[in-house]
Amino acid sequence: MERRSFLKKAAVGASIGAVAAPALAQSQPTINWRLASSFPKSLDTLFGTAEVFSKRVSALTGGKFNIRVFAGGEIVPALQVVDAVQNGTVEMGHTAPYYYFGKDPTFAFDCAVPFGMNSRQQTAWFDQGGGRDLMREFYKDYGIINFLGGNTGAQMGGWFRKEIKTLDDIKGLKMRISAFAGKVMAPLGLVPQQLAGADIYPALEKGTLDAVEWTTPYDDEKLGFYKVAPYYYAPGWWEAGAQLSFYVGIKEWEKLPKEYQMAFEAASYEAHVTMQAEYDAKNPAALARLIKNGAKLRFFSKAIMEASYKAAVATMEEEASKNAKFKKIYEPYKRFQRDQNQWFSVAEGPLQNFMSAHK
Amino acid sequence: MERRSFLKKAAVGASIGAVAAPALAQSQPTINWRLASSFPKSLDTLFGTAEVFSKRVSALTGGKFNIRVFAGGEIVPALQVVDAVQNGTVEMGHTAPYYYFGKDPTFAFDCAVPFGMNSRQQTAWFDQGGGRDLMREFYKDYGIINFLGGNTGAQMGGWFRKEIKTLDDIKGLKMRISAFAGKVMAPLGLVPQQLAGADIYPALEKGTLDAVEWTTPYDDEKLGFYKVAPYYYAPGWWEAGAQLSFYVGIKEWEKLPKEYQMAFEAASYEAHVTMQAEYDAKNPAALARLIKNGAKLRFFSKAIMEASYKAAVATMEEEASKNAKFKKIYEPYKRFQRDQNQWFSVAEGPLQNFMSAHK
Repeated sequence: MERRSFLKKAAVGASIGAVAAPALAQSQPTINWRLASSFPKSLDTLFGTAEVFSKRVSALTGGKFNIRVFAGGEIVPALQVVDAVQNGTVEMGHTAPYYYFGKDPTFAFDCAVPFGMNSRQQTAWFDQGGGRDLMREFYKDYGIINFLGGNTGAQMGGWFRKEIKTLDDIKGLKMRISAFAGKVMAPLGLVPQQLAGADIYPALEKGTLDAVEWTTPYDDEKLGFYKVAPYYYAPGWWEAGAQLSFYVGIKEWEKLPKEYQMAFEAASYEAHVTMQAEYDAKNPAALARLIKNGAKLRFFSKAIMEASYKAAVATMEEEASKNAKFKKIYEPYKRFQRDQNQWFSVAEGPLQNFMSAHK
Repeated sequence: MERRSFLKKAAVGASIGAVAAPALAQSQPTINWRLASSFPKSLDTLFGTAEVFSKRVSALTGGKFNIRVFAGGEIVPALQVVDAVQNGTVEMGHTAPYYYFGKDPTFAFDCAVPFGMNSRQQTAWFDQGGGRDLMREFYKDYGIINFLGGNTGAQMGGWFRKEIKTLDDIKGLKMRISAFAGKVMAPLGLVPQQLAGADIYPALEKGTLDAVEWTTPYDDEKLGFYKVAPYYYAPGWWEAGAQLSFYVGIKEWEKLPKEYQMAFEAASYEAHVTMQAEYDAKNPAALARLIKNGAKLRFFSKAIMEASYKAAVATMEEEASKNAKFKKIYEPYKRFQRDQNQWFSVAEGPLQNFMSAHK
């Protein structure tokens, strides 16, 4: 029924009806938002998290707060979610903050930094350790407010055409790798490559690319790199626990009724749990299938890990020395991480090591 | 305004008003529930999780679905939450399922079993690995439906008056320990003790009790055991990740409007995140204070860990051989855990070990 004809009919007899209807509409407005994801529908664990979130928000608001989810590239290029939210093209996005390393490496603290915190530690820092406030202050300059949006857990180190046994094997290695890790590894001789998703496989096949890293076995399996670059290295020290984020335009956020903000926050916690749980539940079988199909599991040598760590610390310290925003988050992040690793080396770590030896 | 007088006044002119009011009331009834927690207010991380949950449920329902939280013992004895929900004394509870080991050891799969899954693995199993369905089938016999309610992470092995260096030191040791661990350790000579909370400290002081285990440094510090039993052992292999649960009477649950059920579920996810995050954020400083105040950190020897593991497997297998309900969950739990530990030993574990060595 059109609102005008409803009011006309109501006016025949009912002052109460005429007053009640706008009051109800005001308390629960219908709001339609668009969410730009950085991920394709084929990567269902990443893309699907935004759908889990959107469905819960709708359910919590009696279907009145609708967030339509668009895959990467559908309405916004996959790696321009910050820009799209900042300039109001969309009300919100779902992305991996370290994609915006080029704008400012500070983004990476909301996702993953080389040799950074693991999934649980990152959540603890964000939710209960001051991380949320620090990141929100940073995001203000982009007109963005951020919320927890999932985690992948520790990732793999990627796919290599040849074995990487010594530091010498890294020299001249052309690798498609995340920006922060690329910057860390360049002094060790790695040649970071930027390639669009569709170009990676043929480049690996031809040998114009030597290696590529993506995420964890469940996603990696879909991309099929094991067929042309079978050496599958662990661990992906540049992504010890890559946290995803929901970005919202601050102006849009402030327009929401309080109850819708609450629904949004609660749904973000749910999405945060389900994404990590889904990766954990799906990765073991995916890894087993990969190995069965020819992937050769390898571990970075101690020398490579140590050299990478040293290079990572140097890169972080250098950035902190010239970027005040980075430094402001780096210092408390570093302290929190040190404390976490001390605690994790008491109960969590030794018990996990024992169990891994008895699997 | 009383409903009756409202309808009377509305009836003067307005058929629309008279129809609209009950529709609104029906869609959003006021519901008041009581939640019995197993925890005292002093243990704010455990008790507080139910309050985080209750506040969010209220906020998500415009203040109409109110859950009043009662501390352990206030209206229901701390360890009788199952009974209270089952017989309808309260609509819901917040508890650690393994407290009901005496009713059936199967409860423990929803919380922690000796050498069981860690916090993240337990969440993955519950949320995405079939655990929720298996536990809900089990809880049906108690008229209960269960929801995620937090996790402590790997716990400590407790406080000992004397160092425990060899398996011989366990023989005759009187320890207040959780029921499942007590059953596992009895064949090794441990003498499990049941003591009310207030009696533990004086018994330890007098030496009528040799050891006690509670949870993690943040809670342990409050109880002050370090003053009389300074040897603080790790890891607490019987609680690799103790998951808490919200229990609801199935009949009460089914009476809820769908929208309130949705609010309940989303709030449970939030509580699940915040409790683990809070423990992680608070434990490192608490452990440092404990050590500063005289606690002596020790690790169970390899021989003790191996003997305990062997005893735990024997106890679990024996229970499975005579308890069909236990076996039905034990088998898939065991497979899921094995797969998790294989995956965690590839990326997560090696990276965490590296970071713990560089803290």
